[in-house]
Amino acid sequence: MGASKDKIKKLKKKLSKLKKKLKLVSAAASVPAVSPLAPKGGFPDLPTIDGVSFAAGQAGIKYPGRDDVMLVKIAANSSVAGVFTKSATRAAPVLDCQDKMKAALPKDKPFAILVNSGNANAFTGAKGASSVAAICKMVAKRLGTSPDCVFTASTGVIGEPLPHDRIIAQIDDLSARLSPENAQAAARAIMTTDTFAKGACATVNIGGKTVRIAGFAKGSGMIAPDMATMLVYIFTDAAIVQSTLQTMLSTLNERSFNAITVDSDTSTSDSLMLVATGKSGAPMIDDVASPEGKSFATALGKVMLELSHLVVKDGEGATKFVEVNVTGAASDKSARTIALAIANSPLVKTALAGEDPNWGRVVMAVGKSSEPANRDKLSILFGDILVAENGWVADSYAEEMGVDYMKNAELSITVDVGIDQGCATVWTCDLTHQYITINADYRS
Amino acid sequence: MGASKDKIKKLKKKLSKLKKKLKLVSAAASVPAVSPLAPKGGFPDLPTIDGVSFAAGQAGIKYPGRDDVMLVKIAANSSVAGVFTKSATRAAPVLDCQDKMKAALPKDKPFAILVNSGNANAFTGAKGASSVAAICKMVAKRLGTSPDCVFTASTGVIGEPLPHDRIIAQIDDLSARLSPENAQAAARAIMTTDTFAKGACATVNIGGKTVRIAGFAKGSGMIAPDMATMLVYIFTDAAIVQSTLQTMLSTLNERSFNAITVDSDTSTSDSLMLVATGKSGAPMIDDVASPEGKSFATALGKVMLELSHLVVKDGEGATKFVEVNVTGAASDKSARTIALAIANSPLVKTALAGEDPNWGRVVMAVGKSSEPANRDKLSILFGDILVAENGWVADSYAEEMGVDYMKNAELSITVDVGIDQGCATVWTCDLTHQYITINADYRS
Repeated sequence: MGASKDKIKKLKKKLSKLKKKLKLVSAAASVPAVSPLAPKGGFPDLPTIDGVSFAAGQAGIKYPGRDDVMLVKIAANSSVAGVFTKSATRAAPVLDCQDKMKAALPKDKPFAILVNSGNANAFTGAKGASSVAAICKMVAKRLGTSPDCVFTASTGVIGEPLPHDRIIAQIDDLSARLSPENAQAAARAIMTTDTFAKGACATVNIGGKTVRIAGFAKGSGMIAPDMATMLVYIFTDAAIVQSTLQTMLSTLNERSFNAITVDSDTSTSDSLMLVATGKSGAPMIDDVASPEGKSFATALGKVMLELSHLVVKDGEGATKFVEVNVTGAASDKSARTIALAIANSPLVKTALAGEDPNWGRVVMAVGKSSEPANRDKLSILFGDILVAENGWVADSYAEEMGVDYMKNAELSITVDVGIDQGCATVWTCDLTHQYITINADYRS
Repeated sequence: MGASKDKIKKLKKKLSKLKKKLKLVSAAASVPAVSPLAPKGGFPDLPTIDGVSFAAGQAGIKYPGRDDVMLVKIAANSSVAGVFTKSATRAAPVLDCQDKMKAALPKDKPFAILVNSGNANAFTGAKGASSVAAICKMVAKRLGTSPDCVFTASTGVIGEPLPHDRIIAQIDDLSARLSPENAQAAARAIMTTDTFAKGACATVNIGGKTVRIAGFAKGSGMIAPDMATMLVYIFTDAAIVQSTLQTMLSTLNERSFNAITVDSDTSTSDSLMLVATGKSGAPMIDDVASPEGKSFATALGKVMLELSHLVVKDGEGATKFVEVNVTGAASDKSARTIALAIANSPLVKTALAGEDPNWGRVVMAVGKSSEPANRDKLSILFGDILVAENGWVADSYAEEMGVDYMKNAELSITVDVGIDQGCATVWTCDLTHQYITINADYRS
């Protein structure tokens, strides 16, 4: 009897040991439900924007039991600006949006945006275009506008026909439930591999009136300039002339959504739209360089930067948020190429994942960029720590300093390449087992 | 007593289940000792090359208990050609080799090649150059030649000073043990994260004489055009004028070592050298376009292609060897850019790892290349299986066909972009958990 008890004790001990080990090994490859880099406070309390209302619903396109379609209604007399992917294989909704933006948009009719997740309606030939047309027609009918005022986007699997009937079947219900309060639900409905909904907002005083900006974004993998599987919708009650709005959006996009990379892969569906309803009563902005234009652009830039960083923080498998600064380059463009070479290097990104201060890989990435760099003047900083200068490890640097620094969740790498005054900043994340887990199984 | 027995039985069953699970989970991330794509026959039986002798030894630079330095002696009156990395941050030995190749090489003195593994002597400033000089001086002294005839290469960690004294201490011993039979030992000594030694050979009849070509390569990660952490040394007893030899090597390099990518990262140390001793007694080749020149180039091309494929097959974490063909592009250059966009896409590479026939990601990669492509004429083949044509999934294609095909260890992806006649082929491997395991822990 004693022998049996001993045996049971031993077996239980073995079992417990094995369980611990399994937990450890599994953790290395298992994907957390929410990114460790997600903001602690959750989705922000977005202000409502007068003239904009949202609804989310379940079309059952791919994901069972969750919202996968959102509808936004925008008041007539609004200005609408957009930036879209430059991919040569861009999706049907993107082509449709671009065509509509090129034409003069009707001013006296409401606008609408309809987005679905689960299917990208990309590489779907003529069928793709007719799906878009069918959806726009029905939305226009329900909201009393023209199909030319309806913008769509689709995100998800490429190359499968979009079951647009399921979306159309939801439009009555969506229209009935439109509310200015539903922004968060809309942000959730357009998520794919995203682990958290991403929102940002700001207020700014324009001519004595408070102007509100509120936006949300989705994006997690296939994120790179230009641009990403990234859908971004930003709304404001400011009054801004359409051409001015477009200039602001395009300019600020270069320093935010076009300066982030998760995996260097560019999506076929990227869409960024900015809508100004003018309902705040603030004076009309018609010049980017005016004091009002500058104030608004500063606030808008803040919202766009925040949203773009949130996309990186939800990068597939990300455990580190990394800012890459390049200075001393031949030009700003050259600096950007070098910064992206560092930010996209699998060897740099895996070193970051392993919390390895492997600055040699940073040197390699500078070298591979094909941009001018003076090897013997090169300096590298991790945060404020001078790692290398004049083409050689810094006297003041000790490996332990780098090892300690790499434990942070937010990191910065600064490289001066010793040529001229060009500089650029891009943001990226690390490359982990979780990225492989997510992407080796996403579709099958 | 029966209850105890039952309990023991149950616990044992649980234990066995857990053990199995642990094995499975561990296998997903553990790195195999030898790449599953390694040739079944092992290292080939390389012919000896008259005028070339090899030795390998232990300098103890980084790896304890294994050879980490090789010396090659080459008879006087040989021709020597080389291709080196274009990295802006290239290593001291590369700069030294390039300087020596630019000068007229002495003809009447023996040549030598000395290579170490474990330390790349890159980003090591003035110290790096003096390490190279010290090694060349000692090799020249021992082998009775000029330091101008001694070429070196170093591969391994970047940014740490090379302990060249340990290498110099081995030179007497290496010189004493030089033998034409030691090529395999030399190939092993220059390995870093390589899991197998890579050799290839060919014979060809030139003017009634048998000419031999034998070479070896190292390379596993940081592999991309131009070129890779790749060291390649090829030897022949053919008689070839130096300028002709250089032209052949540069031309064939474009279609072999410059057409492979493991992780898009370019090394600071890539070196490819080709030596012709002329000892076969075959007539001198002084024209690439002559019948003899063509025969030799064909055989050399075969050896170079085989070695380059072996490097991909030893790609860090590789489980799939993948040929990417692009046709119908605006130009050959455009085709190459598209092929590399596909071959370097993390999303394509993880899909391959997951045996997922996710052709949507191929479409995405074509789109992101910024090269002209006609979305509505695009066709994609997996092996001989037509997956998509005219911008849409092929009628004859069923998902199961793709799923079955992806189980193969060697795969081909062919994309016609429907613009013009440009074409290109590149080779790559998949992106797996093992790549992360290897590279998140390589240095620390």
